[in-house]
Amino acid sequence: MLGRAVWSSVRQGLGRGLSRNVGGWASGEGRKVDIAGIYPPVTTPFTATAEVDYGKLEENLHKLGTLPFRGFVIQGSNGEFPFLTSSERLEVVSRVRQAMPKDKLLLAGSGCESTQATVEMTVSMAQVGADAAIVVTPCYYRGRMSSAALIHHYTKVADLSPIPVVLYSVPANTGLDLPMDAVVTLSQHPNIVGIKDSGGDVTRMGLIVHKTRKQDFQVLAGSAGFLLAGYAVGAVGGVCALANVLGAQVCQLERLCLTGQWEDAQKLQHRLIEPNTAVTRRFGIPGLKKTMDWFGYYGGPCRAPLQELSPMDEEALRMDFTSNGWL
Amino acid sequence: MLGRAVWSSVRQGLGRGLSRNVGGWASGEGRKVDIAGIYPPVTTPFTATAEVDYGKLEENLHKLGTLPFRGFVIQGSNGEFPFLTSSERLEVVSRVRQAMPKDKLLLAGSGCESTQATVEMTVSMAQVGADAAIVVTPCYYRGRMSSAALIHHYTKVADLSPIPVVLYSVPANTGLDLPMDAVVTLSQHPNIVGIKDSGGDVTRMGLIVHKTRKQDFQVLAGSAGFLLAGYAVGAVGGVCALANVLGAQVCQLERLCLTGQWEDAQKLQHRLIEPNTAVTRRFGIPGLKKTMDWFGYYGGPCRAPLQELSPMDEEALRMDFTSNGWL
Amino acid sequence: MLGRAVWSSVRQGLGRGLSRNVGGWASGEGRKVDIAGIYPPVTTPFTATAEVDYGKLEENLHKLGTLPFRGFVIQGSNGEFPFLTSSERLEVVSRVRQAMPKDKLLLAGSGCESTQATVEMTVSMAQVGADAAIVVTPCYYRGRMSSAALIHHYTKVADLSPIPVVLYSVPANTGLDLPMDAVVTLSQHPNIVGIKDSGGDVTRMGLIVHKTRKQDFQVLAGSAGFLLAGYAVGAVGGVCALANVLGAQVCQLERLCLTGQWEDAQKLQHRLIEPNTAVTRRFGIPGLKKTMDWFGYYGGPCRAPLQELSPMDEEALRMDFTSNGWL
Amino acid sequence: MLGRAVWSSVRQGLGRGLSRNVGGWASGEGRKVDIAGIYPPVTTPFTATAEVDYGKLEENLHKLGTLPFRGFVIQGSNGEFPFLTSSERLEVVSRVRQAMPKDKLLLAGSGCESTQATVEMTVSMAQVGADAAIVVTPCYYRGRMSSAALIHHYTKVADLSPIPVVLYSVPANTGLDLPMDAVVTLSQHPNIVGIKDSGGDVTRMGLIVHKTRKQDFQVLAGSAGFLLAGYAVGAVGGVCALANVLGAQVCQLERLCLTGQWEDAQKLQHRLIEPNTAVTRRFGIPGLKKTMDWFGYYGGPCRAPLQELSPMDEEALRMDFTSNGWL
Repeated sequence: MLGRAVWSSVRQGLGRGLSRNVGGWASGEGRKVDIAGIYPPVTTPFTATAEVDYGKLEENLHKLGTLPFRGFVIQGSNGEFPFLTSSERLEVVSRVRQAMPKDKLLLAGSGCESTQATVEMTVSMAQVGADAAIVVTPCYYRGRMSSAALIHHYTKVADLSPIPVVLYSVPANTGLDLPMDAVVTLSQHPNIVGIKDSGGDVTRMGLIVHKTRKQDFQVLAGSAGFLLAGYAVGAVGGVCALANVLGAQVCQLERLCLTGQWEDAQKLQHRLIEPNTAVTRRFGIPGLKKTMDWFGYYGGPCRAPLQELSPMDEEALRMDFTSNGWL
Repeated sequence: MLGRAVWSSVRQGLGRGLSRNVGGWASGEGRKVDIAGIYPPVTTPFTATAEVDYGKLEENLHKLGTLPFRGFVIQGSNGEFPFLTSSERLEVVSRVRQAMPKDKLLLAGSGCESTQATVEMTVSMAQVGADAAIVVTPCYYRGRMSSAALIHHYTKVADLSPIPVVLYSVPANTGLDLPMDAVVTLSQHPNIVGIKDSGGDVTRMGLIVHKTRKQDFQVLAGSAGFLLAGYAVGAVGGVCALANVLGAQVCQLERLCLTGQWEDAQKLQHRLIEPNTAVTRRFGIPGLKKTMDWFGYYGGPCRAPLQELSPMDEEALRMDFTSNGWL
Repeated sequence: MLGRAVWSSVRQGLGRGLSRNVGGWASGEGRKVDIAGIYPPVTTPFTATAEVDYGKLEENLHKLGTLPFRGFVIQGSNGEFPFLTSSERLEVVSRVRQAMPKDKLLLAGSGCESTQATVEMTVSMAQVGADAAIVVTPCYYRGRMSSAALIHHYTKVADLSPIPVVLYSVPANTGLDLPMDAVVTLSQHPNIVGIKDSGGDVTRMGLIVHKTRKQDFQVLAGSAGFLLAGYAVGAVGGVCALANVLGAQVCQLERLCLTGQWEDAQKLQHRLIEPNTAVTRRFGIPGLKKTMDWFGYYGGPCRAPLQELSPMDEEALRMDFTSNGWL
Repeated sequence: MLGRAVWSSVRQGLGRGLSRNVGGWASGEGRKVDIAGIYPPVTTPFTATAEVDYGKLEENLHKLGTLPFRGFVIQGSNGEFPFLTSSERLEVVSRVRQAMPKDKLLLAGSGCESTQATVEMTVSMAQVGADAAIVVTPCYYRGRMSSAALIHHYTKVADLSPIPVVLYSVPANTGLDLPMDAVVTLSQHPNIVGIKDSGGDVTRMGLIVHKTRKQDFQVLAGSAGFLLAGYAVGAVGGVCALANVLGAQVCQLERLCLTGQWEDAQKLQHRLIEPNTAVTRRFGIPGLKKTMDWFGYYGGPCRAPLQELSPMDEEALRMDFTSNGWL
């Protein structure tokens, strides 16, 4: 299995060496790597027989690569990572690294349920070219995932990761919100650079910005639905499923926010909410992939048990784009 | 009982007469009354023996009246309205009407569980001087509160109310979010002018603004924690418990948002989140009233079963203000 | 207002006198009144113009009175008590007292949001003939309804009530489960005789029985869906909406359980689950009232905002009875 | 990787062959394998360095093997299966097969997020000796796990599994209840023999028994807390974490229920509720393993991120056993 050798060396004490590696990211004054900007959480294309279609993946990347994204999130929730084997997860990242423009960041999802597996996956992701790791909260034993447990988990991962770590809280999938006190504690770790927060609670996002303002800790909005509001309270970017299909528009919204054109930003934001909800909460990855087919990308099927949209759902999905002028 | 005569006449067909009355609010072109601005949801002061302390109420109003609020919400959730008799509810509004500056708006909470009682209370509130009624969603039978049921409820109330109606969704108390489709439908009623949304989901708030943009329908943020984000997505004001103690600051935040000083707005917003959470979700009305005592207002006790804060809670409450520089 | 004089005398110190009254219920050895058995939570009939139809109420009572119920619950959740005025609540109980057989118990719902109003209503309910009071948890400020607050509330009510008090936990309506530790503490009060638990968690019900076994504290299952399981873990009866239409069958289920005929009990229980869910969680009071019309009682309309069933819902409701052989 | 060859052959059309294999379980008249009885969900022992301790696993099995269990569940939620690699999952089952008595059943958890991985794991589990597979609901994309998706998932798994399949619904971990209509549909599959239901809703359990009574479909209670109530409504056994430490007592409770000694059963059930809650919901696997140490088994540490109990929690855990007379 990939990563076994690395993991073994990690346990033999290369922690310090890895820290030096991190030093490439963090300056002498403790500045953390800047991850500000917009990222599409890239989907994993499958063939009709449910094999990963690396060719289509590269084609999508080439198209997405022309847009002013800061980089790409590979194997966020939209990447169907729970359906991929460890080898597939690494191979996908490896292919993306080669297909994508050199000046963009590759943020790779490396979360697993156990701390040990997460460390191994994170180290392996670094080996295949990830610039940073996005680590989702473990969640199966959510009843025991206290702040203490989560702090322990992320600290271990960040200690041993050769690349910076981004926390990832996505309660719609995990049934778990990374607690505020855990976020604040973890923000002080030199190798934890930020959080992707997909919960949509901007009061919480504002408070995270406020309470970590001395830590150079960066907040990314986890969805385009609250991207404007996120910028308003101090977020520095977003990981937006919608950017897989309306990437130019999401980047335009970023620009409007960063240049203080709030009225235009508001108008654009308004038109993005329904399409965004449609490709996330309402119709999920099947909805996102169907929409990608409409917008000139390869969407294709999901792996089971995710099902295709019904014709009625597909019509409602289309309506969410046409009624806002996008189709 | 107060309001009985009015209610009887309402049922005898004065609906049309009331519509003319509404005409005072809505211009010939269908413009609805402007409710933009900041409102504190005024608390109800009680004596040591749990009687309403009208004197202290008036004192608080005199102090609050010096601040640049748009008006006052009387008997929102912070007014302990479920603990008041019908007579007390009306008497409180009547006293506030007399104590408050003439140029400010009085928005009175008139929601009850049944449609009939809500209509009666709304009519009575108008009689004692309310400028508009804020009507919370009925909730005891929340399992049956479909969009259809809620649309029916609010339409009936708005049809029969002599004053404009503001919808009020506060899921933390009611366990119920007024559904989006119901809001959109109700926004078209000439006597429904807006919504106070306390849920804190700014994606939803933005979508409400977007989908009602042809209706002159106004959104008020229901808490100071997401006031800046609310303005960013199109809200026109806020009903903020925190304004009972940091009224000047909440009004300053409004001004910064309205004048496009988003950076200063963000800094101020950040410092208001913890105090706001402390006097709402974290410590409730007992926390708000305790804080009022600190800030020169009369807070006093709540009616049972609401309990006083423990000394430890009181210390934590104070910390949420001191750590942000407000005490 | 009814009860004002009583309440005033209560506050003037008739507590002791009331305790003597309670003495009629509790023997010298501290035995509490026996409330074991089956109770229908009686619905409140309304005319086409939404007035309480006392005549129909009495007719229903006469029919229900021929069944081997232990008594009647008036103004449980199925009585639409949140839609009644205080006068109506008392008048309904008064009429039921006169219409029902003398040897049965009248348990009257007297819960209000404030402790004071609950005490007043409980005292008034006793005056108009209730044998015991069923007191629902206050819930609007559920975020502050700690065990301490609820213990304080119920202790106050039980101290001042001339009749025994039954706790009432119904999370589907209140969003609040009366905490286990509060139940155990309150079970020690001499004037608190039991709990109606509608949550359906039999592990919890069994634990309540276990932890109050020295207190002569009685548990009533709050729904027919888990009546057999309730008896199995130590409940002594049930308050079952379904008993308004299949009263004989619910009483038969009781008998089978009490006489240890568990196999027959299981078969009967199975056939009651879908009809029970239909008249409770699935279609609510509108479903229950519609079914009453089918079974020879007067159901009639609900007060708004509760809506009539759609024809499709009505068909599904009927199917839940026919498929189990009851229609 | 183990199972690769098998999976490949499965896809090449050995489905029919597998069906014959299933024929060993299902008689000509369509009788399904009988899984009635009590099963401990066996924990996975780890060394101090978090390696699987197969020696301790075998020791535990030898001790548990002397009790009148029907068999063992390996890699239910208590087996920390999300923390094991695929190889470890299979190796654990293989070792258990050899260490356990020949006359008992081995039910192996084989659920994964994707349908394909679940099929592979199920086939591999059969190869290493599992008698049946317990398949947890996939849950990461719970927003898309409709009845249709879950029916598709389980049908695929059951079609291709050489051993009978037991459905597994555990909402506390998955945030997902396998919907009633999906259970009823799936009960008709010849290779799906039952469900382990850990939700604790006995109304639902009774209805499952009722609506599948023609399908020879068996319900196992997923926790000792509602084992008696489960038997009362028609369950045929239980998978009980508590049986890892109080195995004799859980089996005695089974016997009391099966022989109709309901009063003694109730007394015993009552004393098991708190200990059961302590080793499940309250203190999780760390609590269960700590208790195993007390009762003469090897508990040992959990894999991270699960944390050890604090001394205070450990004391509370002990109290739940001592106060009920078990320590």
